[in-house]
Amino acid sequence: MVLVNENYLKLQKNYLFSDIARKTRDFIAANPKAPIIKLGIGDTTLPLPPTVIKAFHDAVDEMADATTFRGYGPEQGYAFLRELIVEHEYRTRGVSIQIDEIFISDGSKCDTGNILDIFGRNTIAISDPSYPVYVDTNVMAGNAGDPTNHGQYSNIVYLPCNESNLFKPEIPAFHVDLIYLCSPNNPTGTALNYGEMKSWVDYALRENAIILFDAAYERFITEDQIPHSIYEIPEAQKVAIEFRSFSKTAGFTGTRCAFTVVPKDLLGFDSNQKNFSIHALWNRRHCTKFNGVSYPVQKAIAAIYSQKGSEEILRNIQYYQHNAQIIRDGLNKAGLEFYGGINSPYIWVKSPQDKSSWELFDLFLHQMHIIGTPGSGFGPNGEGYFRLTAFGSQKDTQCAIERIQNYDFNA
Amino acid sequence: MVLVNENYLKLQKNYLFSDIARKTRDFIAANPKAPIIKLGIGDTTLPLPPTVIKAFHDAVDEMADATTFRGYGPEQGYAFLRELIVEHEYRTRGVSIQIDEIFISDGSKCDTGNILDIFGRNTIAISDPSYPVYVDTNVMAGNAGDPTNHGQYSNIVYLPCNESNLFKPEIPAFHVDLIYLCSPNNPTGTALNYGEMKSWVDYALRENAIILFDAAYERFITEDQIPHSIYEIPEAQKVAIEFRSFSKTAGFTGTRCAFTVVPKDLLGFDSNQKNFSIHALWNRRHCTKFNGVSYPVQKAIAAIYSQKGSEEILRNIQYYQHNAQIIRDGLNKAGLEFYGGINSPYIWVKSPQDKSSWELFDLFLHQMHIIGTPGSGFGPNGEGYFRLTAFGSQKDTQCAIERIQNYDFNA
Repeated sequence: MVLVNENYLKLQKNYLFSDIARKTRDFIAANPKAPIIKLGIGDTTLPLPPTVIKAFHDAVDEMADATTFRGYGPEQGYAFLRELIVEHEYRTRGVSIQIDEIFISDGSKCDTGNILDIFGRNTIAISDPSYPVYVDTNVMAGNAGDPTNHGQYSNIVYLPCNESNLFKPEIPAFHVDLIYLCSPNNPTGTALNYGEMKSWVDYALRENAIILFDAAYERFITEDQIPHSIYEIPEAQKVAIEFRSFSKTAGFTGTRCAFTVVPKDLLGFDSNQKNFSIHALWNRRHCTKFNGVSYPVQKAIAAIYSQKGSEEILRNIQYYQHNAQIIRDGLNKAGLEFYGGINSPYIWVKSPQDKSSWELFDLFLHQMHIIGTPGSGFGPNGEGYFRLTAFGSQKDTQCAIERIQNYDFNA
Repeated sequence: MVLVNENYLKLQKNYLFSDIARKTRDFIAANPKAPIIKLGIGDTTLPLPPTVIKAFHDAVDEMADATTFRGYGPEQGYAFLRELIVEHEYRTRGVSIQIDEIFISDGSKCDTGNILDIFGRNTIAISDPSYPVYVDTNVMAGNAGDPTNHGQYSNIVYLPCNESNLFKPEIPAFHVDLIYLCSPNNPTGTALNYGEMKSWVDYALRENAIILFDAAYERFITEDQIPHSIYEIPEAQKVAIEFRSFSKTAGFTGTRCAFTVVPKDLLGFDSNQKNFSIHALWNRRHCTKFNGVSYPVQKAIAAIYSQKGSEEILRNIQYYQHNAQIIRDGLNKAGLEFYGGINSPYIWVKSPQDKSSWELFDLFLHQMHIIGTPGSGFGPNGEGYFRLTAFGSQKDTQCAIERIQNYDFNA
C-alpha cells in the first residue's frame, strides 16, 4: 500500500482562477455579445521583441546542424547567460555576484517551490496577501501545520499587509527562519524602499534567518529609492536568496526562463548546529532534479542584454507602465481608492462601500464587463481588494477605464 | 537558525562524471595529440531533423506577433501535443490513455525526481545498477536510510541486475511500495519482455504497489516481444506511472521536453488507509511548482508526430542503432563479452580479466583513447562493467571499434 504525502491532504482547494474562469464562462454564455476585457491575470501580451526573436531563430538553426547542435548543457545554465546576468543585473548596480552563484531555470514558480527541498522544518513567515505558491508549497513540505477556519495555516507566521502599514510587511518581534518577501509586490503593487529592505536584512542577520526574495517585477521599478536587488543592501548575500523571473522582464511567460541567485555566503544548519553551504545543497538539488533550460531559450533571453535588446524590452515595459498610468488616472477620476501601479504592473483597488472582493468581481464583470482578480484569492488580508493589471493592450485598458469612470459606484 | 534538509547530508558525493572529466582532462594535458573518442555519456549528437526545426521556427515566429503570441500555457501542456501523444504513443498500440492523464514537462529527470513529492514514507525498490537519480532523490526525500559501507543505503531494497539474471530485476519475495523499472535499461542496455513486465504488474496489483516505469529508451526497441509502454500490460494503469523522455526519441537532450503518464486509476493511501487519487495529487504538484514547457519547444516536439517528422526521427534512431550494431560486431570480434545494444543505445561490456570498472576505464582511455563510463558509477552491481553508447558519429564509432579490435586484451 503506497502512502501519499499526507501534507498534500491539507491543501485547501485553490479555486481562484478556476472560479474566475467559470464565472466568466457563465456570463459569456448568458451574454455572448458582451465586450469582455481581461485585466485579471498577470500575463504579458506584447510579442517577444525582434532582437530576442532573431537570437531564438539563430539558436534553433544551431540545433539543425551537427557541428553546432547542443545536447545536454550545464544544469545551472550556460556561462554566456550567467556572465551577462552577473554583469548587467548586478555589477552595474555595484553588486558583486559570482557566476556560479547564478542558477538558470525554467521559472521562478519552480524555484520558489523547489527551494524548500533543501530546507528542514523551519518557521516560515509569509506576507498576507501573497502569491499563493509560497503558502501551498509550504503546506506540501509539511511546514504549514493545519488549516485554520479563516483560510490560513496554524504554523505559518503571516505578515499582514493592509492599509494601516501601506501593504508593507512588518518585522516580527520574534524569531522566524525563512521569510518570503516579494518586492515590487504581487498582488498589492507596492514596493519596499532601501530602508525597509535594510531592516529586513538586519533582522535576518540578527536572527540567522534567510530571506527568499522574489523580484519578479523588478523591471517595473520607477522610483530611485526602491532597490532592484536585495543585494544592494550590504551583507544581504549572507542572508538572502533572490528569485528573478524573465516572465515579466521580457515577456517570457510562455517561453520560460528565470534565474535564482544563491550566494556562497549563505549558511544553513543541521540539528547539531553544524553549518552547511546552502549553495552546495541547492547545486546538488539542481543537478539531481533538473537538466538545464532549453538552449534556444537561453540564447533568446541572452539577447535582452544587447544594446538593441535592452532597448526593445524597455519599450515593452514602458508600454505596460503607460497602461498602469492610464488605470491610475482613471481610478482617481472615478474616485476609487487604490495602491500600486507606480513600481509595478499591479493596481490594488479598494472595494468601495465595503463590498467583498468577489462582490466587486461580479460588479465589474456584470456591469462593466471587466475581469479582475479578487484580492481574497491571495489570502484573508486581500479581502475587500481587487487586482487590476497593466498587461492588457492600451486600447483595452483605455476602454476598461472609460467604463469604470462611467459607472456610478454610489448608485 | 535555518535548518537544512538533513537527508541531503546523507548523499554520497557523486564523482562519476566529474572523475571521468578530470581523468580525461589530465590525459589530454599529458597527451595533447591523442585522438580521443567519446563513447561515454548518453547524449545525442545528430541535429534536430528539418520538420522539427521548421515547426520550432514557426512557433518562434508566432511569439513575434501579438495576435499569435503565447503567454502562460496550461501547466500540463498544450492539448495539441497531449492529443498527439495519446494517439501516436498509445492508441496505435491499443492502449487507451486519456488526454488529461498526460503531463508535459521539461524532462524525465525532473519528473522521476519530483514524483516523490506526492508520496509519503514508503519502501522503495531500485535496480542496481541504475540511473543515479532514482537513489539520490530518495535519499533527499528521506526514504533511503543511512549509507552503508558498500555504497548503498540501508532502507532501499536493491534489485541486483547481473549476469546470473541477465540483468533483469527479480521480483522480491516480500512487499515493497514503489518500484523503479527502466526498460530498455540504462545502463545495462537490456529490456524486459512482455512476460517479465506482466510479472511486475501482477506483483504490483497483488501488493498494492506502484511501478515508476522509465521508458526513456523506448524508441530503440527492435524486438517484437518488448513492450513499448507498460500500459500494454492489462491493468497496468492501476499500478504504473510511465516516464517518457523525448531526449533520446528526438534528440531533445538540449531542447528539453518529456511527458509523464499518471493514470486516473492509480490510488495511494493515507495512514488511515483512506485512498486518494495519485493523478489529482500530481496535478496539484505540477500546477503549483511548474509553469508549463516553452511553447516553441512543445510545437517543435509535436512535429515528430507528422508523417515526415516521424520518418526523420526514425532515420536518426536507425543511425544510432547502426552504431550499436557496429559496436556489437566489433566487441564480438574482439572477444569481449557484453550485453545490450539490441533494444538500446547502450552496450554493457564485461571487464576482461576481472578488471574493475575504473581499471577498464583507464585502459580504454590510455591504450585506445576511448572514453566510456565505468559501470560501478551506477551502483555496486555495476562493478566490473563498462558502458559504451551508440550516440557517437558513425565514423568515430567505427574508428573506436577498430582500436578495440586491434588491442590485445590478453597482453
